[in-house]
Amino acid sequence: MYEAMFGQFQKQLRQVDGWLDKAEAHAKERSFDPNVLLASRLAPDQFPLLKQVQATCDVAKLAAARLTGKDAPEHADTETTVAELRTRIQSVLAFLGGLVAADFADAATRSVTQPRWEGRVMTGHDYFLEHGLPNFYFHLTHVYALLRHNGVNVGKRDYLGQLTQRLP
Amino acid sequence: MYEAMFGQFQKQLRQVDGWLDKAEAHAKERSFDPNVLLASRLAPDQFPLLKQVQATCDVAKLAAARLTGKDAPEHADTETTVAELRTRIQSVLAFLGGLVAADFADAATRSVTQPRWEGRVMTGHDYFLEHGLPNFYFHLTHVYALLRHNGVNVGKRDYLGQLTQRLP
Repeated sequence: MYEAMFGQFQKQLRQVDGWLDKAEAHAKERSFDPNVLLASRLAPDQFPLLKQVQATCDVAKLAAARLTGKDAPEHADTETTVAELRTRIQSVLAFLGGLVAADFADAATRSVTQPRWEGRVMTGHDYFLEHGLPNFYFHLTHVYALLRHNGVNVGKRDYLGQLTQRLP
Repeated sequence: MYEAMFGQFQKQLRQVDGWLDKAEAHAKERSFDPNVLLASRLAPDQFPLLKQVQATCDVAKLAAARLTGKDAPEHADTETTVAELRTRIQSVLAFLGGLVAADFADAATRSVTQPRWEGRVMTGHDYFLEHGLPNFYFHLTHVYALLRHNGVNVGKRDYLGQLTQRLP
């Protein structure tokens, strides 16, 4: 299950790379610097697009690290351009792509914590279901919504990507 | 796994009810009709808040129906007020709350389709992972983002809700 979920996270991160293509095309057509979009916010006290992309990457890599015990790649949060965000996405994709099903063997029963929880812990099962998964889609959808809000022509197909369908 | 996932969907839908409380309090404080918020959009060619709430409900109920073979409650999409949206949420919560683990016994291998797929099918496993789950969080997060964009004081804790944590 976890392997499949993180496979889906990888798919979604590859979709983000495609959304950034559309953002750059939109900026070129309108003759503005695409990096201007990275400061866009839906509310003044919410993360801008740049941090939404960073957070999407971080939730994916940290959830995988916490559930497998593997070290996630470190990122200094110094990105200022679309190109640098693409590099971050690729780094997370490489990390997730290197994990195999056996790495998640005891994921559900691991004890997970983080500094802001003040010593409290969650099981891997609860953590992924209640925290990792909702947070990943929260930041991912904010990336999409911010682009859409700025006129970038992304649609539901860009969000979901190719579906595993067949004729019966 | 599916039972746990739909338990999480129920939790998230109950959180939406709390976001609507904050939306109504915000409207009262600013002396406007809270139902005005329901027409708010992030982009002119994207669903307004009203339809984002309807869609969040629909993805949850239809995914559960497709994976269990149970009939989902029908909704005529006639809501125009926050109060009516709350009723819809309660209806979906009642449906999801009535499902038990055994109902999902063959969920992963069921054949799932919908009219717009033109005859193509997905396994229940692929459908949930690639379509139901991402779509649920897509519309849910848009509900949150639209409220936030309109100044409603929702935060990450309102999004995630209470976490199952304990002291080690």
